[in-house]
Amino acid sequence: MAFTGTQLRSRVTQDNTLELSLIEVTLPDPEPDEVIVQVEATPINPSDLFLLLGPADISTARVSGTPESPVLTADIPAKMMRMVAGRLGQSLPVGNEGAGVVVAAGSSDAAQALMGKTVGIAGGEMYAQYRCMKAYMCMEIPAGTSAAEGASCFVNPMTSLAMVETMRAEGHTALVHTAAASNLGQMLNRICIEDGIELVNIVRKPEQEEILRNLGAKYVCNSTSDTFLKDLTAALIETGATLAFDATGGGKLASSILSCMETAAVQSMTEYNRYGSDVYKQVYVYGLLDRSPTTLSINYGFEWGIGGWLLTPFLQKAGMTKMIEMRTRIAAGLKTTFASHYTREISLAETLSLQAVAVYSKQATGEKFLIRPQL
Amino acid sequence: MAFTGTQLRSRVTQDNTLELSLIEVTLPDPEPDEVIVQVEATPINPSDLFLLLGPADISTARVSGTPESPVLTADIPAKMMRMVAGRLGQSLPVGNEGAGVVVAAGSSDAAQALMGKTVGIAGGEMYAQYRCMKAYMCMEIPAGTSAAEGASCFVNPMTSLAMVETMRAEGHTALVHTAAASNLGQMLNRICIEDGIELVNIVRKPEQEEILRNLGAKYVCNSTSDTFLKDLTAALIETGATLAFDATGGGKLASSILSCMETAAVQSMTEYNRYGSDVYKQVYVYGLLDRSPTTLSINYGFEWGIGGWLLTPFLQKAGMTKMIEMRTRIAAGLKTTFASHYTREISLAETLSLQAVAVYSKQATGEKFLIRPQL
Repeated sequence: MAFTGTQLRSRVTQDNTLELSLIEVTLPDPEPDEVIVQVEATPINPSDLFLLLGPADISTARVSGTPESPVLTADIPAKMMRMVAGRLGQSLPVGNEGAGVVVAAGSSDAAQALMGKTVGIAGGEMYAQYRCMKAYMCMEIPAGTSAAEGASCFVNPMTSLAMVETMRAEGHTALVHTAAASNLGQMLNRICIEDGIELVNIVRKPEQEEILRNLGAKYVCNSTSDTFLKDLTAALIETGATLAFDATGGGKLASSILSCMETAAVQSMTEYNRYGSDVYKQVYVYGLLDRSPTTLSINYGFEWGIGGWLLTPFLQKAGMTKMIEMRTRIAAGLKTTFASHYTREISLAETLSLQAVAVYSKQATGEKFLIRPQL
Repeated sequence: MAFTGTQLRSRVTQDNTLELSLIEVTLPDPEPDEVIVQVEATPINPSDLFLLLGPADISTARVSGTPESPVLTADIPAKMMRMVAGRLGQSLPVGNEGAGVVVAAGSSDAAQALMGKTVGIAGGEMYAQYRCMKAYMCMEIPAGTSAAEGASCFVNPMTSLAMVETMRAEGHTALVHTAAASNLGQMLNRICIEDGIELVNIVRKPEQEEILRNLGAKYVCNSTSDTFLKDLTAALIETGATLAFDATGGGKLASSILSCMETAAVQSMTEYNRYGSDVYKQVYVYGLLDRSPTTLSINYGFEWGIGGWLLTPFLQKAGMTKMIEMRTRIAAGLKTTFASHYTREISLAETLSLQAVAVYSKQATGEKFLIRPQL
């Protein structure tokens, strides 16, 4: 029996247009080590948006086609086309992660063992009704936990755990996190509390401070406050944090963090050093919520670094044993430490509606959509 | 017999003033493992200037005192005083490196063996007529090589060798260097030619291009040229360089280098990756010739890093064996690979003259002063 279902596709065309559409896909029979998952729930993460929407100007979006098979198009500013030169004309499937039920399995024991089980998977192409997957890539979701609860079992849980692992591997002992009231940020708070790690949270709004304090966060600094640099420096002196993960990328925030880290480090120096402190300070940029240029005012000596950071290279370096250890911890904590919260559930067709795209394209902290492909 | 001689001192006072002066210092007798070096030649390196002049506004400099004992003072802009808060009121000796003759030695064999020899030393406080030093810190300069030829035996040679060592240690295979026509840059060119390493030189003026081409440099890009980004990308594709050492720090250059490296890396990719190439690209900032803010336009994926880089932490990590290996290579090449060129020789008193400070404070490429403390 072959499985046929709807799949969302994103395409960028030569005439500076992004086009989202739904197509029908028939899956081949699974290989011995594969399973077919009926996708029940798949989230729209910030990390999905670049492939889904590219650099399109969403204010120009319009919908054509039929209600069952809508087509959303939007203009891409000409100067942004360089960013998507590598995908011109290609019809690309989208969706990093999700969860569903195994409805067919290959002949291997590993695949057969998953038959009828609810599994979480990551591997792209999840905005679809069916997904064929290697059995070993499936995370079995414990009985009593729903597909919706398991849908975000990979990106945010793995990323927040990987931040803590990176901290340990690189010799730091406490963390700074920006855009800290996000789903990911809340998860990181719960992990740090569980593991006894000091975490300095940076947010932009009083209500975000509130969310984190209610979660038990001890250090919350508001970057729009007049006393931000003073508050941050005080928190850095108390925690000794010398590693930050920054979701914003643009603007002056990364540089301010390094500057306050240096001020904190210099406080404990007894002798003047013209080259600054000998305390190494690192900011990893893992998102670009702020697309304006990043400005560094290098007044923090020579012991500093800023760099890109992404989950995939981390996992490649970490190896399979560490990854299984992380996956086991996540599976056990899907309803607690690694729980995600959604503000809306939508169908695949609704994902292409003007109303929905206007909201999820903004990546507003607190807003998170869950796609239900079987609706 | 006690040695008494002149020493240059730099002091920053509460009233926003920098003060350079000469004092008489009498050295204690050397300990068993120490020698006393009569300093014959000591260069003014860019790395000396921050301690020597701090952030003083040299256009405000004036000289008082006597011709034999001049005092140079200059104003420090109020907003810069924060940078020198750690040294307020302290009278600091200056001068990273130099060479001279051992005129007294402690009782140990190692110290006695150096008696009468010409040695190169690094360890600060070299802008002086005499310097007491541990014997093991002295690099014996081969017969036939003068103190003037050995004066720059440490900072530039060690730094340029350390750049190549860093390249190897971090898995890169070719280099980019900015402000590349400097004494250091010329040295790096000679090392890279000797070692068969491809080096992409970035300069700002046609005459600097000329200097490097005459040295045999294959890749020289002028950052003020209209075709700079194209030229740089072409050189990066040919060389595969993914590591740059940047002496300028400020402005857009570091970001442009990363951007061109990414363009070069993407050229060899067969499949579109929304996160950019998986080629890791690094810029190390080792100087701040351009004090304007550093601006990053992050369009090079997530596999990138920018960071401070300094010789001292490199040497601490490299260990004594590596350092001796580097020192041996330097001693053998002081007249060739590691030769420095000076545009002027001045006395300690002249170092405090308005005429001299106006020139050496500018750190112009090609200008390099040698202090002769015995004049």
